[in-house]
Amino acid sequence: MAHMTSPLLIVGSIAFDDLDMPSGTFRDVVGGAATYSALAASLLTPVRVVGIIGDDFPDANLERLRARGIDTAGIERANGKTFRWHGRYSADLTSRVSLDTQLNVFADFSPKIPDPYRASPFVMLGNIHPSLQVDVLRQVERPKLVAADTMNFWISGEPEALAEMLRRVDLLVINDEEARQLSGIQNITKAAADIRKRGPSQLIVKRGEFGALLFDEAGTFFVPAYPLEKVVDPTGAGDAFAGGLMGYLARYGDTSPFALRRAMFFGSALGSFCVEGVGPSRLEGITKGELSTRIESFCSLVDYGGQLTFSG
Amino acid sequence: MAHMTSPLLIVGSIAFDDLDMPSGTFRDVVGGAATYSALAASLLTPVRVVGIIGDDFPDANLERLRARGIDTAGIERANGKTFRWHGRYSADLTSRVSLDTQLNVFADFSPKIPDPYRASPFVMLGNIHPSLQVDVLRQVERPKLVAADTMNFWISGEPEALAEMLRRVDLLVINDEEARQLSGIQNITKAAADIRKRGPSQLIVKRGEFGALLFDEAGTFFVPAYPLEKVVDPTGAGDAFAGGLMGYLARYGDTSPFALRRAMFFGSALGSFCVEGVGPSRLEGITKGELSTRIESFCSLVDYGGQLTFSG
Repeated sequence: MAHMTSPLLIVGSIAFDDLDMPSGTFRDVVGGAATYSALAASLLTPVRVVGIIGDDFPDANLERLRARGIDTAGIERANGKTFRWHGRYSADLTSRVSLDTQLNVFADFSPKIPDPYRASPFVMLGNIHPSLQVDVLRQVERPKLVAADTMNFWISGEPEALAEMLRRVDLLVINDEEARQLSGIQNITKAAADIRKRGPSQLIVKRGEFGALLFDEAGTFFVPAYPLEKVVDPTGAGDAFAGGLMGYLARYGDTSPFALRRAMFFGSALGSFCVEGVGPSRLEGITKGELSTRIESFCSLVDYGGQLTFSG
Repeated sequence: MAHMTSPLLIVGSIAFDDLDMPSGTFRDVVGGAATYSALAASLLTPVRVVGIIGDDFPDANLERLRARGIDTAGIERANGKTFRWHGRYSADLTSRVSLDTQLNVFADFSPKIPDPYRASPFVMLGNIHPSLQVDVLRQVERPKLVAADTMNFWISGEPEALAEMLRRVDLLVINDEEARQLSGIQNITKAAADIRKRGPSQLIVKRGEFGALLFDEAGTFFVPAYPLEKVVDPTGAGDAFAGGLMGYLARYGDTSPFALRRAMFFGSALGSFCVEGVGPSRLEGITKGELSTRIESFCSLVDYGGQLTFSG
């Protein structure tokens, strides 16, 4: 298919993760939403990252991003330590607890969008303070599509800043618990209608291993998670989903309802690759051929032969 | 579409349910797997039911089944009370506990298939003792497709009888917890492969509000649950799913992989109607027009415009 790729700007966290999993403990794993989203999108479109790291973050780690074609010029290095998160997963990997969170240099992060990034037509605002998300939007020039993530901490603690952010974004990508908390409504379909009235005309509700729902002006759409034989590490899967989704949209420069629906499959595919390795290791190694093969498997997973009608 | 409907034989429980729900308490609600499956299938194909009721079961209740075209001649009336179940649902309706189960006449149920039913080409074996399920198969003549349900009680208590049942059925329809318990494998994809080796070439794993997965010789297929704005009562949704699925297959007399995939949508559609009312009340009132409309909504829910490819 003929297409013209557009650059995707991703703003968000870069971190060291310490992961306690049934399969073992892993220390100093490169993580953070921006890392996962950028790696996922990098196979699809040029990616630019704005984030912050400390002086303990080896340049070799940035080089691993650059090796995937990711522009890291917008990653600021500050004095101090890099954001660090320590989590422990349950035996079946379906839940986790945060054992420790050290914001470090991320506590004073104030995203500065480099001049060459300001015209980025696609923008992904990772989960940072909603006021900082809005601040990013003041620095960019009329993007074609702005997507944002958020979390329970901002929903309960910064409702006004969050409300302003919601008024300024096109697409909100959150999980089902966040959708319930944000709307105060248990039923996801009703919660989605409530959230869309607050600003984002498009809402994606992620449900982990149970797939994701899209609510937009064209109606409701569902994409399954890919049924894997082995899940190694769920860390970052939601961010990889968002990155794959935005990467696809930017690749084709298309924001139509059908494009968004197809993008959901790319998000789900990148999320499925992500969980196959510890940290972002699997995302760093995916080939275009592997992605193509998984997309074909997704087609098969939802292919019912195209004759679904019923007339009494 | 031209088609020749085939009769569907359903064997299973008929019950009185007492339901404690956030919306209220409901007593003496007609229930049982056979009731829900039969009502769901009745819109699609001629249905015959084999089950047992006590002398407390009003004929008016059978008349309500007959009003939907269901053949109730195979329902045996015995001295004693009808099977009774009392359940309480959680506030969000996603879990429930059994407060009381009285098997009553169901304890001595030994299905006798009337002569006119023996040539039924489609057979649904509801969740009864696996030896009774096998006994039904001894009484029928080479059906085109045999589907079965089972439950944790038989998986743990009657492994040998269950193993024999599995060797004799084409399609097993169970939920994800049952699939894990039956196989002893946590991962659903691996669990499915294990179960299919035990007999059924086709396996459907139901996941409630998260849809259902099909595993067969053509691969893996996924159907979502319909996103409803209001769930009233989840009782019987899984049985309505099985009934809608088998009703569709019987309607078109087609057991090909694509037919089974399309049938999954009809199962999911009937399951979605089921939960919209207390007990089987909504299923009793669905029109063909309503079913047609919901199937159209399902098409839209999974319609991505049919151009899902990726080549580097």
